[in-house]
Amino acid sequence: MSENYDCIIIGAGPAGLGAALYASRDRLKTLVLERFLPGGQISTTDRIENYPGIERIDGPGLIEQMQTQASGFGAEIKTGCEVTKLHKLKNGHLAVYCDRDKFVTRGVIVAPGSSYRKLGVPGEEQFHSAGAGVSYCGTCDAPFFKGKSVVAVGGGNTAIEETLHLTKFAEKVTLIHRRDEFRATRVLAEQLLERASEPNSNLIVKFSTVAVAIKGEGKVQSIILKDVKSGKEENYPCDGVFIFIGMVPNTGFLKGFLELSKAGFIKCDCAYLRTNVPGVFAAGDCRVGAAMQLSTAVADGVIAAIMLKQYFRDPNWWNEPVSDLLQPGGW
Amino acid sequence: MSENYDCIIIGAGPAGLGAALYASRDRLKTLVLERFLPGGQISTTDRIENYPGIERIDGPGLIEQMQTQASGFGAEIKTGCEVTKLHKLKNGHLAVYCDRDKFVTRGVIVAPGSSYRKLGVPGEEQFHSAGAGVSYCGTCDAPFFKGKSVVAVGGGNTAIEETLHLTKFAEKVTLIHRRDEFRATRVLAEQLLERASEPNSNLIVKFSTVAVAIKGEGKVQSIILKDVKSGKEENYPCDGVFIFIGMVPNTGFLKGFLELSKAGFIKCDCAYLRTNVPGVFAAGDCRVGAAMQLSTAVADGVIAAIMLKQYFRDPNWWNEPVSDLLQPGGW
Repeated sequence: MSENYDCIIIGAGPAGLGAALYASRDRLKTLVLERFLPGGQISTTDRIENYPGIERIDGPGLIEQMQTQASGFGAEIKTGCEVTKLHKLKNGHLAVYCDRDKFVTRGVIVAPGSSYRKLGVPGEEQFHSAGAGVSYCGTCDAPFFKGKSVVAVGGGNTAIEETLHLTKFAEKVTLIHRRDEFRATRVLAEQLLERASEPNSNLIVKFSTVAVAIKGEGKVQSIILKDVKSGKEENYPCDGVFIFIGMVPNTGFLKGFLELSKAGFIKCDCAYLRTNVPGVFAAGDCRVGAAMQLSTAVADGVIAAIMLKQYFRDPNWWNEPVSDLLQPGGW
Repeated sequence: MSENYDCIIIGAGPAGLGAALYASRDRLKTLVLERFLPGGQISTTDRIENYPGIERIDGPGLIEQMQTQASGFGAEIKTGCEVTKLHKLKNGHLAVYCDRDKFVTRGVIVAPGSSYRKLGVPGEEQFHSAGAGVSYCGTCDAPFFKGKSVVAVGGGNTAIEETLHLTKFAEKVTLIHRRDEFRATRVLAEQLLERASEPNSNLIVKFSTVAVAIKGEGKVQSIILKDVKSGKEENYPCDGVFIFIGMVPNTGFLKGFLELSKAGFIKCDCAYLRTNVPGVFAAGDCRVGAAMQLSTAVADGVIAAIMLKQYFRDPNWWNEPVSDLLQPGGW
C-alpha cells in the first residue's frame, strides 16, 4: 500500500512546519511525518524572546500556532511515525518508509532536527533512562528539583539559559564548564556571572572542570568532578545532573542515502538547500552551515518549499549553480 | 563629528530588524539607519498569513512588534536617515555617511531591501496602498482571490510562475504581456500556453497588450487594456491586478563599494552572507539568491548578526570557505 504526495516533510519542528505552511499554501499535497510529537526541541523551551515578530512566547504555544497554520492550508501531519528509509524510484519519485507504511512523493524536505549530545560518562545513560536524576532539559525537568542541589554541565547559550532557569527551582545550582570562559554570548555570560556573585546566591560556577562519572544508589547522589588544570578529582554531592553540551543531528536514518558531513550534518548548497539527491532538500538544524536558531530553521523550511516548485518545473535546475554567488576564499 | 558603533544596519525592514534584535541582544552597540520609516515593503501589506508562528497580522503591526523587540534590547533606530556612502577605514572599521552625519562602526549589515517595479499607471499606487486589489506578489496574495477574476501583467519567469500559481486560486486569470512572445524560459512559457489552451481553462493570455489604467470605486473593478498593434482600448472587468514586472534592489548607493550582480543584487556567499568587503554582510531581498519572503529576510538578518560576532572574533574567517558545502553542478 502506498499513498501519493507532492511533498513529504520529515520532522514537524519549526523547519518542517515552515515548509508545510508554504507547500500546502501552494496547493501541494503535503504530508508531515513526525516520529514523536510536533515541535522538536523548541517544545521544551518555556521562554522564547528571539523570534522576531513575537515578543515572548513559550515553545509549545509557538508550535501549536505553526501547526494550526499549516493544517489550515491542508497539510496532513502524522505523529508517532518514524521514517526509517528513503528510496529513489525509477520514475524520479521518492519512496518514504515509515514502520509498515510506504508513501510515494514527488519531493522530500528533510527536517529531522537534532538531539541532545551525551557526555558519555558512567552513570549518565542509566540514571537518565530510569528518570533518576540525569536530564538534558532544564525547562522540562527543573520543577522536579525544587529545594534540591543540582549540577549543570556546559558553556554555550543554552547551557547558560537553562542554568539560570534551574536557579529558580533548585536550592543550589553548580555550573561546571571544561574551559576557563564561556562560549555563550556576552549578555548571557554576564547575566550568569552577575547572578553567581550576588550575596547568598544559590549559583556556583566552576571553570576548567569536567564530569568524570555520575554516582548513586538507585538515583543520582553525587558527581565526580575533575579539575582539568590540577587533575584533582572530587566527589561532589548532588541530587541531579543537567547536561547542556549541544546537539547531534538526527540523520542516522539518512546514512547511505544522503551525503552527510563527518559530524552527521546533511551536505547541501546553502542557497537553495539541495542535497546530493535530486528532489530531496535539507532544512533546519540537520544541515551543514545551519545557524541553529528558531527563525533560521523556519526560513530553511520556507526556502525548501519554494525551491521544490522550481524543481518540479525543471528537474535539470537541480544541477545548476547558484548564479552570482561569491565563492568564499575567491575574492 | 562621528559616533562609534559595533554594528550598523542599513534598512529597518524585516531583515534589518531581525539583525538588530540579535545584535543588540548580544550587547553590541547597534544602530539601524532607515531612509523612510521602519518596515520596508512589508509595511504596505495589510494581511500576512505566511509568517510561521503568527496566524494573521498586518505589516505595520508586525514591524512595530519587531521594532519594540530590537529597541527593548538597546538597538538605536534612526529614521529619515538615508545612507549615501560607505567607506572602509585604514584600521578596518567602516565609515557610514548619512546626509551630514558620519558614523563609524566595526561591522555593517546591509539590508536595504528591494522594491517592486511599478507599471506607473493611474490607480496602481492608490489601490495598492489601500490593499484594495493591486498586488506585486502572487505567492503572498493569491489565496485572497479565491473564486475571483484577476489580471496579471508581465512576461518573465516570475510573471509566468506567479500567473500559474494564481490559476489555482482565482476563477479566471488573464495574463497580459506587452510583446508578442514571452521573455520567460521556453519550458515555462509552453507550460502556461498549454494550460491556457485546455478546454474550460481559467487562463487567458493576451499578447501585445498593455495596461493603461486601473479603475474602481474603493477597490479594483476593472483594468483598461490597450492593444498595442491596433491601439484599441477596452475596459476589462476584474477584482484584482497582479503586476509581475520585476524587482529592483535598493542598492544604488552601494555601486563601487560592494560587488553587485548585473541586476544590482549584492553578491555574497549564501551561507554566511559575506560580501566582497570584510565586515560588510548583506541580508534580505537585496542579495543574490534571496527567496524574497518575510521569514527568509528575517533569518538573513539573524544569520548576519550571528556571523558578525564570528568576524569580530577572527577577521581571517572572512576568507574561509563554508565547510562541507555541496557545490551545485559538482555532484
